[in-house]
Amino acid sequence: MGTENPTAAILIIGNEILSGRTQDVNVQFLARRLAAIGHRLEEVRVVPDVSERIIRAVNELRASYDNLFTTGGIGPTHDDITSECVAAAFGVPWEKHRPTWDALAHHLGENFNAARQRMAMMPRGAAPIPNMVSIAPGFSIGNVHVMAGVPQVMQSMFATLERQLAPGVPIAMRAVHGFGVREGSIAAGLGAIQQKYSALDLGSYPFYRQSGSGVAIVAKGTDVEALDAAIGEAEALIAAQGVAAIRGEPDL
Amino acid sequence: MGTENPTAAILIIGNEILSGRTQDVNVQFLARRLAAIGHRLEEVRVVPDVSERIIRAVNELRASYDNLFTTGGIGPTHDDITSECVAAAFGVPWEKHRPTWDALAHHLGENFNAARQRMAMMPRGAAPIPNMVSIAPGFSIGNVHVMAGVPQVMQSMFATLERQLAPGVPIAMRAVHGFGVREGSIAAGLGAIQQKYSALDLGSYPFYRQSGSGVAIVAKGTDVEALDAAIGEAEALIAAQGVAAIRGEPDL
Repeated sequence: MGTENPTAAILIIGNEILSGRTQDVNVQFLARRLAAIGHRLEEVRVVPDVSERIIRAVNELRASYDNLFTTGGIGPTHDDITSECVAAAFGVPWEKHRPTWDALAHHLGENFNAARQRMAMMPRGAAPIPNMVSIAPGFSIGNVHVMAGVPQVMQSMFATLERQLAPGVPIAMRAVHGFGVREGSIAAGLGAIQQKYSALDLGSYPFYRQSGSGVAIVAKGTDVEALDAAIGEAEALIAAQGVAAIRGEPDL
Repeated sequence: MGTENPTAAILIIGNEILSGRTQDVNVQFLARRLAAIGHRLEEVRVVPDVSERIIRAVNELRASYDNLFTTGGIGPTHDDITSECVAAAFGVPWEKHRPTWDALAHHLGENFNAARQRMAMMPRGAAPIPNMVSIAPGFSIGNVHVMAGVPQVMQSMFATLERQLAPGVPIAMRAVHGFGVREGSIAAGLGAIQQKYSALDLGSYPFYRQSGSGVAIVAKGTDVEALDAAIGEAEALIAAQGVAAIRGEPDL
């Protein structure tokens, strides 16, 4: 893939992922949506709800990639510390965001207590990310986009956000499956295809399913003609093993 | 949680996760199993199949945590580069592991081709991690444990591995759910419980389900008496909102 793709990282602030209580589903959602708008997801990190860990990760990742998307830790409870940590990472005050404050005060009335008031605080200079599920917004500051951890809320925030991100060339995928094929038997041929189409990412993924075992060959890239040609050669490689090659998009 | 818990990190070497093609399930499996043997998972990273990225992540994470578990990139194809990257990270030669070489040669016969021979290469000083699914082993070197990405294979490797890891005090969880409860209404009370039981991790997680919305309070820690007491107080906090508090283990 080329330089026409902005890079991205995801930072998950989430004790609940590190404890195994919760199965993360935000990475896959964001990965697919980012690929569709031509942003190349280069790294994911999961860190606990610990200030210095969050601040360090925000600063490392925002320096390394064009955009950083965070999920989690923006609610009203004691373990929701993402917002003040992002302020600290940027070295700016964490303060009332007046329009958000007023909107929450209006909406919540006498229930706009001290805990909820924290959701109207943002790093100075942040712009809110509204969403359809929760009255409390996420926010963007610089190249960092701070979203909720709850999938429904995060997805609604990202829907707002993705219309604002400068699109790159969409990153497409093609896949072909060979049941009964062993990776070791096609590795040399596959390596040759990767060399020939060096601008693509060609991956090989063994699978073990009730319906049978085999290998999925997946090609990713921005050049659709090259993708089709490469996956065609992978298909021939599988067919040469004497089994049917099943074309299809990846397991979406 | 105390110092009686060794720390752990997971490094996922996986273009297929970063592209959104594959939903990772290894983190949740490992997180739960590590908690059960008293190892505290402190960080997860996902990086692409790029040598310098893998080498840097291995070195940062093995220096920061007691154990590092990697998944992915140990098959026979061109995109399987974890093993040589770990050798480079340790600054040791990547060479034939003789017992593995002989076992694969015996098992595979004339199919023991150049691609498959790569699966019998390890960093010098590594010890193989056998498994029940694939003839090719993972390996441990120092505090780094290199496993397959395919969940069935990884799980079998970890079953071997966890018997060798020095156990810590098991990290237990308790949870209570309040349907109809809003986080902002219990945040102050919850913060007070966290302060009182400062050795525990108390988390608050809103949920939105077809059966109703609400909040799950989750307590984690090694002190089971404190856990029971803290979750009892959280239960009372929810009950004070006039709704039923539903005790139960987290959504396992």
